[in-house]
Amino acid sequence: MLKPGVLDPQGEAICHSLDAIGFDDVTSVRQGKVIELDVAEGTTRERVRDMCDTLLVNSIIETYTIDME
Amino acid sequence: MLKPGVLDPQGEAICHSLDAIGFDDVTSVRQGKVIELDVAEGTTRERVRDMCDTLLVNSIIETYTIDME
Repeated sequence: MLKPGVLDPQGEAICHSLDAIGFDDVTSVRQGKVIELDVAEGTTRERVRDMCDTLLVNSIIETYTIDME
Repeated sequence: MLKPGVLDPQGEAICHSLDAIGFDDVTSVRQGKVIELDVAEGTTRERVRDMCDTLLVNSIIETYTIDME
């Protein structure tokens, strides 16, 4: 997700569109990404964190969480 | 998320990029969206489902789940 305070024009556009078609009970919208990785057996959370920090996440404007299943 | 079988060029690009920088333990990547809505008290899951079906989700190519907190 974008960090709080970072402008999210897509989220705002969605919010306006919802309002325009009658969903006026939505007060704000933020849009983010999900990246689902299939990884080899034994891949550690540390390794996935490394992928996030190296390539997947722009840590200047984005936050992330890792869920492993 | 995109339905299984729907091409995901963004996910593929991420997979290739990870591989190119040495993360060769990733076998496939799918990219999807998170939309975080702040809604008024008392907004039901049915109402949110209605937003998804009307505007937020392209049900031809996408699936979705709703988490309410």
